Amino acid sequence: MEKKKVRIVLDAMGGDFALQSNIAGGISALKETNNRFHIIFVGKENEIKNELKHLKVKDGNFSILNADEVLSMEDSPTDVIKSKKNSSISIGVNCQKENNAEAFVSAGNTGAVMTAGALFLGKIDGVNRPTIGAFIPTEKGFSFLIDAGANVDCKTHHLMEFAIMGSIYTSEMLNVKRPKIGLLNVGEENTKGNEVAIETNKLFSNSDLNFIGNIEGGDVLRGIVDVIVCDGFIGNILLKFGESIPSFFKFKFKEVAQKNFSKKILIGSLKNTFKQMFKSLDHEEYGGTPLLGVNGVVIIGHGSSSPKAIKNMILKAEDIINKKIVEKIASAIKPSK
Amino acid sequence: MEKKKVRIVLDAMGGDFALQSNIAGGISALKETNNRFHIIFVGKENEIKNELKHLKVKDGNFSILNADEVLSMEDSPTDVIKSKKNSSISIGVNCQKENNAEAFVSAGNTGAVMTAGALFLGKIDGVNRPTIGAFIPTEKGFSFLIDAGANVDCKTHHLMEFAIMGSIYTSEMLNVKRPKIGLLNVGEENTKGNEVAIETNKLFSNSDLNFIGNIEGGDVLRGIVDVIVCDGFIGNILLKFGESIPSFFKFKFKEVAQKNFSKKILIGSLKNTFKQMFKSLDHEEYGGTPLLGVNGVVIIGHGSSSPKAIKNMILKAEDIINKKIVEKIASAIKPSK
Repeated sequence: MEKKKVRIVLDAMGGDFALQSNIAGGISALKETNNRFHIIFVGKENEIKNELKHLKVKDGNFSILNADEVLSMEDSPTDVIKSKKNSSISIGVNCQKENNAEAFVSAGNTGAVMTAGALFLGKIDGVNRPTIGAFIPTEKGFSFLIDAGANVDCKTHHLMEFAIMGSIYTSEMLNVKRPKIGLLNVGEENTKGNEVAIETNKLFSNSDLNFIGNIEGGDVLRGIVDVIVCDGFIGNILLKFGESIPSFFKFKFKEVAQKNFSKKILIGSLKNTFKQMFKSLDHEEYGGTPLLGVNGVVIIGHGSSSPKAIKNMILKAEDIINKKIVEKIASAIKPSK
Repeated sequence: MEKKKVRIVLDAMGGDFALQSNIAGGISALKETNNRFHIIFVGKENEIKNELKHLKVKDGNFSILNADEVLSMEDSPTDVIKSKKNSSISIGVNCQKENNAEAFVSAGNTGAVMTAGALFLGKIDGVNRPTIGAFIPTEKGFSFLIDAGANVDCKTHHLMEFAIMGSIYTSEMLNVKRPKIGLLNVGEENTKGNEVAIETNKLFSNSDLNFIGNIEGGDVLRGIVDVIVCDGFIGNILLKFGESIPSFFKFKFKEVAQKNFSKKILIGSLKNTFKQMFKSLDHEEYGGTPLLGVNGVVIIGHGSSSPKAIKNMILKAEDIINKKIVEKIASAIKPSK
């Protein structure tokens, strides 16, 4: 008997380059995998059809799910359950809830996707705060930073949830047996940090986690741990800072090149080398990040996701389904008493 | 009548390269300025004399203040008033307190220098938390990040103090009339952030500050504000992360060079260009950072301060004295009721 193909709902309307980028990314994922999965484009049916026509796509392993409303980046996340109940995000996540799909992928309003994921799919028993993490490039490969901006004002037990979920996710995605966990802090010593960090260090030290201790800002890019745990306030700021580094260096290179013609030529001939280096800092390569802690697979992408990024998000969703990460988190998290 | 020369106490014992680096830096500052100020080396008199002999320095506008004890990086900051009352830090700061000097400069234990500064010199009326900031390089020049790691668990009114002090310091040091203030946050909108950030945005908006709103992690290197206000927990992590970027890129360049010989040659020929670029990220250039909010001038340097960094710290101390920054902060901060 043929194994049933996984069904992935793709938000056609989400992101800065909707619908073009999303449809193109979805079609490219199907082509590349020889229709290995089924994609459900959710959004305004007519617009999706027009875009498919524009791309001269006639058939493939996809279907269309109509959603009359569009929840934009400017809308409030809670509009997903209020004024925009018929948005592609609401209808797309509910499609998974009703067991008509195994994953939902969107480059749309992050807060709205999180809200829909938590409310419609429900939180895994024992998880108080679903979270998103992000792989960041290091000297040794990648580390998973969790929380990447989903939750602020986190308490110690929230950080514990992040550590457990991050450990499982990293173990599966990077194939590391017992991922090394570091707590992002202002000093290596146990006594360093703000109140929450000091308490969290104690909690982690007495847990089953492979906790190697506090790590500092300067350790992040060294890759000394697999999972970096932090409050989403700092996670968001650090990630966005990191993402801005390539353009800062491009700016600096230009400055040098403008002042010095022979160096301009040298820099020009190294252009591809720089591109290659910066590639490891490029979010498009990673293909979005999962919303961890909900009863389902939800992949959230950058608003500026290109077709390539969308394609990678779909491939990641499939991978997460196949690796049963949701089930593994559910069995690792202790339900709260 | 000749203007009285300012007297700067230099902690001979502080930092990873004490005493060599400190004495060499002090002597270099005197030479470069033609003995424009007077330096008081504080520390173990014999060791200081030996080092001066080693450097073949016979005279100059300096004197020696003996301190029998050394407070190391491993000591607790409060040891400065407990077990190490006769440390170079205690005796050096007290020298300023007793009006025998106008500034204290140290590359030693940051916490201990802060403690000594706050306790011996006293806090400026209206300042609850003395703070340290740091200039960071941006596409447009420099921005002043405050707090850079001195204070964690900051409340809204602490951030207000940082903003006022940062505004005055930046105005004087960068010669900007009304420095633009940004609040480091996870979104531009007023409603974004953790509890403290949301409250702080309100307070700043209703103040006399030239507050331009929240800025995100990705805005830091763009240089869109003159002063970036944040809790020291995030300030410390962000700064240390930033400081680690050059070595990350060196690592990446090496990787590329090892794989490709022709690129190795190209990269080699651009070595000085990279050095020049990274220079703007180099803490040695800035010459430490002042402890703001105390009744006196205290400059704190990196533990790894080179002679050049020490020299720049001394020059900065002189500059701060001449610009009457302490007096200006005192008249701008409203004493708490």
